[in-house]
Amino acid sequence: MALTYFDHNATTRIDDKVLEAMLPYLQQDFGNASSRHGYGINARRAIDKARKQVANAVGVQPVQVIFTSGGSEANNLFIRGAADSLKPANIFTSAIEHPCVLKPAQALSKRTTDPWNMHTLPVNTSGQVDLDEVAKLMRQHKPTLVSVMLANNETGVIQDVAAIAELARSHGAMVHTDAIQGFGKIPVDFSALKTHAMTLSAHKVYGPKGAAALIVDKRLLLRPLIYGGGHESGLRSGTENVAAIVGFGVASELAQSRLAETAQHVSQLRDHLEKELLAMGAVIFGMNVPRIPNTSYFALPDIEGDTLVVKLDKAGFAVAAGAACSSIHPGQSHVLAAMQVDPMLARCAIRVSLGHSNTLAQVDEFLQNTQRIVAELRQISSITV
Amino acid sequence: MALTYFDHNATTRIDDKVLEAMLPYLQQDFGNASSRHGYGINARRAIDKARKQVANAVGVQPVQVIFTSGGSEANNLFIRGAADSLKPANIFTSAIEHPCVLKPAQALSKRTTDPWNMHTLPVNTSGQVDLDEVAKLMRQHKPTLVSVMLANNETGVIQDVAAIAELARSHGAMVHTDAIQGFGKIPVDFSALKTHAMTLSAHKVYGPKGAAALIVDKRLLLRPLIYGGGHESGLRSGTENVAAIVGFGVASELAQSRLAETAQHVSQLRDHLEKELLAMGAVIFGMNVPRIPNTSYFALPDIEGDTLVVKLDKAGFAVAAGAACSSIHPGQSHVLAAMQVDPMLARCAIRVSLGHSNTLAQVDEFLQNTQRIVAELRQISSITV
Repeated sequence: MALTYFDHNATTRIDDKVLEAMLPYLQQDFGNASSRHGYGINARRAIDKARKQVANAVGVQPVQVIFTSGGSEANNLFIRGAADSLKPANIFTSAIEHPCVLKPAQALSKRTTDPWNMHTLPVNTSGQVDLDEVAKLMRQHKPTLVSVMLANNETGVIQDVAAIAELARSHGAMVHTDAIQGFGKIPVDFSALKTHAMTLSAHKVYGPKGAAALIVDKRLLLRPLIYGGGHESGLRSGTENVAAIVGFGVASELAQSRLAETAQHVSQLRDHLEKELLAMGAVIFGMNVPRIPNTSYFALPDIEGDTLVVKLDKAGFAVAAGAACSSIHPGQSHVLAAMQVDPMLARCAIRVSLGHSNTLAQVDEFLQNTQRIVAELRQISSITV
Repeated sequence: MALTYFDHNATTRIDDKVLEAMLPYLQQDFGNASSRHGYGINARRAIDKARKQVANAVGVQPVQVIFTSGGSEANNLFIRGAADSLKPANIFTSAIEHPCVLKPAQALSKRTTDPWNMHTLPVNTSGQVDLDEVAKLMRQHKPTLVSVMLANNETGVIQDVAAIAELARSHGAMVHTDAIQGFGKIPVDFSALKTHAMTLSAHKVYGPKGAAALIVDKRLLLRPLIYGGGHESGLRSGTENVAAIVGFGVASELAQSRLAETAQHVSQLRDHLEKELLAMGAVIFGMNVPRIPNTSYFALPDIEGDTLVVKLDKAGFAVAAGAACSSIHPGQSHVLAAMQVDPMLARCAIRVSLGHSNTLAQVDEFLQNTQRIVAELRQISSITV
């Protein structure tokens, strides 16, 4: 497949160094980390090392890292695990959370016994959670659980998680942030975000699918989603996916060490991309607010996003129309809806999410192809209408 | 590491053919299966193929395969997912289930709102669930949910799941079997077992850690454990671990095609092992009842299991003392306790679980080393006492 890959917010290719570290655990070092013989001890040591690597990358102690099979599981572990440890009350999420935060919160609010009250924090037209609204809503409904993402997967807009967490903490709430799209793109320090829990995922930072983590503050009480042999301090039972966890450790180290260089590189490409897109008449969502440096979410009026994705795919470019992983509003982005984007324009949304291996030449080729395809589509549309 | 591996019930080495099939999905074919471009379509096709392979191996339709991250998650998905779809009533498990069945059932029985009544099906001294007791207990307490494993991970004893399922179904119950230790060792046909759900795991059949499945009957209502983007028919959200799922597919195919040959090979080795162990004065648990062909669970009186495992590890053999993955009764096997094995003898338990690559020469070396170590330990003990 020779597609130019511009969809790094959906997933990334495993870094060669990461795969190299994983391979022994897919071959000769295949032990179950719970076994007491050499194979098991070897696997346990590998997990211990990875736990330190992940912990170091976000400034926490290894014991604060709870490995899970993915970001969706980690987000569900917080929402359901914390809710099950508390008396049902008010749970707050932002309107633009990933479905793996919104849906478990909705499930809590819809259950027949002990339902929670779910409250949605609105965003402004730039996609930022409105702090005045947060303050107002939290005065009206004392928050118990709060989850607000660090950076949105579609727009890339960064939220002021620390400020929201401080407000929520002043009411005694337990606060979580889904930091999956921030990690590896902007500095992520657990203490600075002031939350009680934070989700990270390996496969968005050139690590493997199958490993993620919930970073937890020791004051947070959680019930497990998966009960059993008592792995991960009793919070996540199941034979550890040693190779994936090892890969996550190395990927976290690389994400940290390459952060500044990658951010500079992709932001240069993005700025160039957006300058040219604006010249083509594009609307860029969240353009004037802080965003992660790799993401551009835009619409070319009258050019349907799904159509453009397919045409670009044929032309050799892998981009997204709205978010992958979202079936919450099939055909429509709930993020753009929350930003009060005209539904006709929202249907035109395209996301380009860059990675460190992308080049300026690829961006230029993408722009040329997009321009050509758009001209063709407009011609067809002017003929048929 | 040059240890002879005799711990295949804990985990297995990924088969070369399985790893070969996985590698492209850890390298160039890294797409997110939810993406609409070429990378995504390629990943989706790979998952579709694996789903067919797993389905074929146990005689079901692909739509009946719900992929999860592991066996513990699949067992929890049945227990909690089915319970959350029903009015709380009676849940039955056998006394010898894996902790990832026992613990979620206990959690249901201990919750403050809407607790379930948990009932334990006893086993006889050979480790078989007693059908007369099942019939009696189910007449006393109408069962709603039932989970009984196909083969026990410690003893290897095979349960008459079909008979238990028929009894449970006659009371209107939904029935599940954890078939993880049976799959690849004895024929496993979903329809023949007459359950509504069945758990399989990849890493016990020379597949990777990180992939497993809950096989479901369409009549079974389940709530997800992990909510989100709606993957796996809405029953298990989260970016699919494509490489692990691909590996699971190939491993399932291999497990099926090698079943008869492997069973014959390992049962010959096991019979030889047990003949010699009996000559050394060993007690073999579940010896005279149907067992999976690769497992021997025995005790050499007065030789503590943990001590022997460490000595055998040093001598080059990887075996288990009791079950890996079990923290349910640290230091004591709940399986042997249920079989009413004297606790002093239970502390001596050692499990040898063979795989297709093991040889008669390895078994003979193991026997020689065990004999030597036992003689040494008995000498020390006769000196010090």
